[in-house]
Amino acid sequence: MAAPASLPPGRNLLTFLTDFGTADTYVGAVKGAMLGVHSNLAIVDLTHEIPPQDVLQGALQLMSAAQHFPSGTVHLAVVDPGVGTDRRGIVVSVGGHTFVGPDNGLLSFAVSRIGTQCGITIPEQGDALLLPEGVNAVVLDEPRFWRQPVAPTFHGRDIFGPVAAHVARGVPMAVLGTRTDRMLKLPFPRPVRHTRHSWSVEIVQVDRYGNLTTCLPGEMARGQLRIIAGQVSITGLQQTYGSTEGPVALIGSAGFLEIAVPGGSAAAELGLQRGDSVQIEME
Amino acid sequence: MAAPASLPPGRNLLTFLTDFGTADTYVGAVKGAMLGVHSNLAIVDLTHEIPPQDVLQGALQLMSAAQHFPSGTVHLAVVDPGVGTDRRGIVVSVGGHTFVGPDNGLLSFAVSRIGTQCGITIPEQGDALLLPEGVNAVVLDEPRFWRQPVAPTFHGRDIFGPVAAHVARGVPMAVLGTRTDRMLKLPFPRPVRHTRHSWSVEIVQVDRYGNLTTCLPGEMARGQLRIIAGQVSITGLQQTYGSTEGPVALIGSAGFLEIAVPGGSAAAELGLQRGDSVQIEME
Amino acid sequence: MAAPASLPPGRNLLTFLTDFGTADTYVGAVKGAMLGVHSNLAIVDLTHEIPPQDVLQGALQLMSAAQHFPSGTVHLAVVDPGVGTDRRGIVVSVGGHTFVGPDNGLLSFAVSRIGTQCGITIPEQGDALLLPEGVNAVVLDEPRFWRQPVAPTFHGRDIFGPVAAHVARGVPMAVLGTRTDRMLKLPFPRPVRHTRHSWSVEIVQVDRYGNLTTCLPGEMARGQLRIIAGQVSITGLQQTYGSTEGPVALIGSAGFLEIAVPGGSAAAELGLQRGDSVQIEME
Repeated sequence: MAAPASLPPGRNLLTFLTDFGTADTYVGAVKGAMLGVHSNLAIVDLTHEIPPQDVLQGALQLMSAAQHFPSGTVHLAVVDPGVGTDRRGIVVSVGGHTFVGPDNGLLSFAVSRIGTQCGITIPEQGDALLLPEGVNAVVLDEPRFWRQPVAPTFHGRDIFGPVAAHVARGVPMAVLGTRTDRMLKLPFPRPVRHTRHSWSVEIVQVDRYGNLTTCLPGEMARGQLRIIAGQVSITGLQQTYGSTEGPVALIGSAGFLEIAVPGGSAAAELGLQRGDSVQIEME
Repeated sequence: MAAPASLPPGRNLLTFLTDFGTADTYVGAVKGAMLGVHSNLAIVDLTHEIPPQDVLQGALQLMSAAQHFPSGTVHLAVVDPGVGTDRRGIVVSVGGHTFVGPDNGLLSFAVSRIGTQCGITIPEQGDALLLPEGVNAVVLDEPRFWRQPVAPTFHGRDIFGPVAAHVARGVPMAVLGTRTDRMLKLPFPRPVRHTRHSWSVEIVQVDRYGNLTTCLPGEMARGQLRIIAGQVSITGLQQTYGSTEGPVALIGSAGFLEIAVPGGSAAAELGLQRGDSVQIEME
Repeated sequence: MAAPASLPPGRNLLTFLTDFGTADTYVGAVKGAMLGVHSNLAIVDLTHEIPPQDVLQGALQLMSAAQHFPSGTVHLAVVDPGVGTDRRGIVVSVGGHTFVGPDNGLLSFAVSRIGTQCGITIPEQGDALLLPEGVNAVVLDEPRFWRQPVAPTFHGRDIFGPVAAHVARGVPMAVLGTRTDRMLKLPFPRPVRHTRHSWSVEIVQVDRYGNLTTCLPGEMARGQLRIIAGQVSITGLQQTYGSTEGPVALIGSAGFLEIAVPGGSAAAELGLQRGDSVQIEME
């Protein structure tokens, strides 16, 4: 098998995730601003349908998708209810991936996961990640890399987009702002242990098919588990959606315990939605 | 007029059609996996809003769009209710276009149409297309071209996407799997003849404007036809949406008889939807 | 700071805005037709969710987004209720930007704004823009640059798309059609003055967050203004969404007076929608 093709010189990959929606042209305006800085950018939309100002959902989706891109990719993410306040903007580089966006926790899950995959454990302290050696971060405080004048309501177009395009062009992080060794993290729901064998886990995502993603990491799930989800009891883990009828539990493609109804919607059939909990019994 | 520009060496076109939706980041994950194999790929989204697991609708949309791309394009399509079961994955090459996806009929209309346009008739036998000389196909059974480990629920990211990227890079089909001379086809609704002059035709698509696409191929429609659609009777074929008031019949851009209401929605005004039938009288 | 990177030879930027939606494959078909003419085109979607046949909304969105792209960009826009009638197709070049689409007013706001930014005032006469020196336009009447046969219902795929791709490749405008010195303009709502200090302004857009964009240009808004919007009174202009509670007024990112509810939806909380008016008192 041949080695992976490399990008031609000067072409760079950049992923883009927002809560802007696609009916307005906010996404287009940011792309225009980036292409004005670096016209040979290959921009890949992750999604622009994060629910408005839902930072947690944006952080989960960014974590799921970013890890599948090759090293060298720049990831721009903007879900920014605090735009125009004094929340910081940051650039964070880990394991060959560089993340650009507001320092409101949006980037924190992705940074932690890429770190873990590279063997870098990133300690937490209160609501912060403490960035160890191997994780570089700067606070954005160099206006010469921004689009002027900066609209106080649209840092995506005027600050984050242009900075991300400069990063993709190879501008060193050190000139984009001031070094920092911490960034905000979001609280990620954890499984709650009730008794030795019994846990509650929260549903953190519902996808288009009605599949329910829980907060239980796949590596914690043991094969003989039993799940009580709404009125339904599910025993054991399946390998696939296609092999059985009725609700099944499996480790989904993002690495968490997932509940699905093959050919149907688990959300609809079990009457469950994001934020609800299911009970798990594991030996 | 100058000759069409060619792609720079190493850049390849790939279209992408799924039922993944655009709110989740499944589409982004597949793109990441493909760009990891072939980073200079130009990916064009056809649509990701095929109704979940609606293989027929995916097959119709792929047929409509694929033919407009230049020779040399790779088409990746994933609508895959059988993911993780023993349905096969295939690559099919015809007339300079290469299709990659599950062998569940999704690719069959597009392969037949491109074949027809190249003068290749592809015979049918039961629920299969029998692939003649000039149509090459392989079953995907070479895991070294897949992303490892393969998630049983996400062959789009782990098998079809990487394989499509390898095809676009120029990996010969023969090394991707085992040669096959048949693929599954979907039943396409045909006009049903009632009397010498009278037919029923099914509505196979309703678009954003409420235009109704029927299964009657344009070449079967004769000018003096009369259509009874819901409570309405339409006489003759128009050349355009813009020239008259009220419901009109015309040959739509995909080559089938279409019913439209200029400036309005035929679906809403006639109370018709996909799967309904209209009556046609032709001399 | 390094100079902006330039596109590699032969790669060109093209933006694309329509009312086609993204569930059908109309957008994909146009892209295929364009890439058949110029396969090294970098296509950026502005939006395809303009409400069906809503030319005014398309014109506003195109104006908002096009200005952020670098000089040299081609902008293809298709919202075309008159497709197949005798409305003209045009190409208009101003300030390094080239616009392609139907001559139904869709392009008029963007052409005027780019003109203004380049110091070119474009006079109006009735429902026309009179194009002065520095603004070049041709009527599309050279079928050899079109895809044949031209479907009377799909000029986006068969005329505008191919022509835009030829423009991006560098085909001179003069060979694409006949020179013209006028194009249709849309009426843009203007603030209506009631008394010396009192105005009515129309809401021209509601975005995904429920922010209300009015027709009052930012440069007309004076700081001590008071807005009566529905049951609510707002005093003064804020610099940002983030700094206060309740409804605020500010100059939005497109340059017009905007009403927003930080963390909420102004449209929902004030019960206002597109087409409604708000009252403004300015000293």
